Amino acid sequence: MYSAEKLREIINNEIDRRLAQLSARKPEELYAPVKYSLGAGGKRLRPVLLLTSFNLFSDEIEKALPAAIAVEVFHNFTLLHDDIMDKAEMRRNNPTVHVKFSENNAILSGDAMAFLSYQYLAEYHTPQLFDVVDLFTKTALQVCEGQQYDMDFENRMDVTEEEYLEMIRLKTAVLLGCSLKAGALLAGTSGETAQQLYNYGINLGMAFQLQDDWLDTFGNQKDFGKKIGGDILANKKTWLLIKALEKASGQAKTSLTYWLDAKEYAETEKINSIIAVYNELGIKMLGEEKIKFYFNAAEKIVQDLPVSELRKAPLQKFGRSMLGRSV
Amino acid sequence: MYSAEKLREIINNEIDRRLAQLSARKPEELYAPVKYSLGAGGKRLRPVLLLTSFNLFSDEIEKALPAAIAVEVFHNFTLLHDDIMDKAEMRRNNPTVHVKFSENNAILSGDAMAFLSYQYLAEYHTPQLFDVVDLFTKTALQVCEGQQYDMDFENRMDVTEEEYLEMIRLKTAVLLGCSLKAGALLAGTSGETAQQLYNYGINLGMAFQLQDDWLDTFGNQKDFGKKIGGDILANKKTWLLIKALEKASGQAKTSLTYWLDAKEYAETEKINSIIAVYNELGIKMLGEEKIKFYFNAAEKIVQDLPVSELRKAPLQKFGRSMLGRSV
Repeated sequence: MYSAEKLREIINNEIDRRLAQLSARKPEELYAPVKYSLGAGGKRLRPVLLLTSFNLFSDEIEKALPAAIAVEVFHNFTLLHDDIMDKAEMRRNNPTVHVKFSENNAILSGDAMAFLSYQYLAEYHTPQLFDVVDLFTKTALQVCEGQQYDMDFENRMDVTEEEYLEMIRLKTAVLLGCSLKAGALLAGTSGETAQQLYNYGINLGMAFQLQDDWLDTFGNQKDFGKKIGGDILANKKTWLLIKALEKASGQAKTSLTYWLDAKEYAETEKINSIIAVYNELGIKMLGEEKIKFYFNAAEKIVQDLPVSELRKAPLQKFGRSMLGRSV
Repeated sequence: MYSAEKLREIINNEIDRRLAQLSARKPEELYAPVKYSLGAGGKRLRPVLLLTSFNLFSDEIEKALPAAIAVEVFHNFTLLHDDIMDKAEMRRNNPTVHVKFSENNAILSGDAMAFLSYQYLAEYHTPQLFDVVDLFTKTALQVCEGQQYDMDFENRMDVTEEEYLEMIRLKTAVLLGCSLKAGALLAGTSGETAQQLYNYGINLGMAFQLQDDWLDTFGNQKDFGKKIGGDILANKKTWLLIKALEKASGQAKTSLTYWLDAKEYAETEKINSIIAVYNELGIKMLGEEKIKFYFNAAEKIVQDLPVSELRKAPLQKFGRSMLGRSV
């Protein structure tokens, strides 16, 4: 049995090994952005979840490595393309691929990463490949759908809570669910248990994304690692803003609308003013409750998993750590 | 046994059926460019090759349809992304996807098409899936590599004939080879015969791309369907230009260099001047010989296929028609 820390070490070594293999491939211009992106680190959440799930049922971790690499490569592919679409200039404290190389490089090397992820998956010549390719492909399409909704929401002021939750389910949660379920399937686990793990990933992913939004507004910069208030300045349709627009009336509504429409302003003043409205409406606590709702649902699923308490401890611990809960 | 015309009709009907299914998927903004691109027609060369190859060994054509759709969807995915990278504004007499919709739409809907092609492939829950996914994924990566070389060549004046041939092999020929081999594999055909069909596709693809370049310079606008001389105006490193640079000396060399460096010029004058150099160097005939070389290699492979003359006639006929040869 492996801890998440040990599994992250295993996955990092495997990524290094695979990147060294890529160095032999030509043309260099195609594979350099792949190495740049995958080599930049990151938390490796998805492969660790996949391996942790696999490890619930089997200790032969090396058998799960190709799929673990596949989900990490896929995730990085989405970052390359999303960063172009979102015009993001920095990622993990480095220039994004389209800034460091070029937009064409980010498109084409991103494409190559999508196919590389299938090349890693296709290393399985076992009957599980059918289910894993089905799951992975369905998930990949859902992630594209989620990104499309996210872009569409930028131009809309009437996004509902339900629409927002569906967007983050598609854009973020399904890939966590897919990673966990793939781990279970590759360990030869039955459909129902694999589905429990998928549902665990969905709830964990929802809590994780909602918390990311919450920290962007209510976190402290040191722990969060990014500047606080970025979502507010960008008028991002987060759960917090959607909920505030839903609940606001009178003076709060006027203030919210004023700041959303404002073209020129001091950044700190806008951030503080919107937070003041959020505080007045109790958005901070409502957000905490929403996160807790998904976190509790995830915890319940782990409790119900048909494996020993000892076996499930690493998954439980890792899920909690993702949400900064006591472990 | 089916003619290529009949198979094209079958594939067009199947594409219509699949597009109707896509209409039910949300968000509409993601799938509209997919329908726009696939619905715009095109010659359907790759799926027709796949079905024709399958039909060498089996008449149960419906079994090959998911893979035939997959290669066509994949091909259209490459067009969406290549057209962004090449800043192409028109395709099949319509605005390209990034012009008609937006660049972000062309990136994301292109991604969705790559995954859709795997979703169609994954409909095979038979052992052939292993080989077909391997082949398809390897091919997809090679196509990315070919596009990267093509872009790199834009900024180089020292591209060799060998490099150029390798680029078009990757960018164009391997997908024809993949289509033909996949058809054979799905019909349950042995490795060696499937490989013969792959090699047939490579030679056909090389001849096809070389002929496309040749027609861009020496064709007539009515038959070619595009304006003559586009490659010359763009200083495109075609086989013709590479060969001319290799053979030119004295006055021919001076003229070629002058026109390649020229910043302002009358288009017709540049086209006619470069063609004059080509004629002086015998490039037109050398190009014809090169096309003929690959065409003959392709013909030879079909002759050697271990199937009856009657069975191989549609493939032979279709291959010849792709190159405008007497059928």
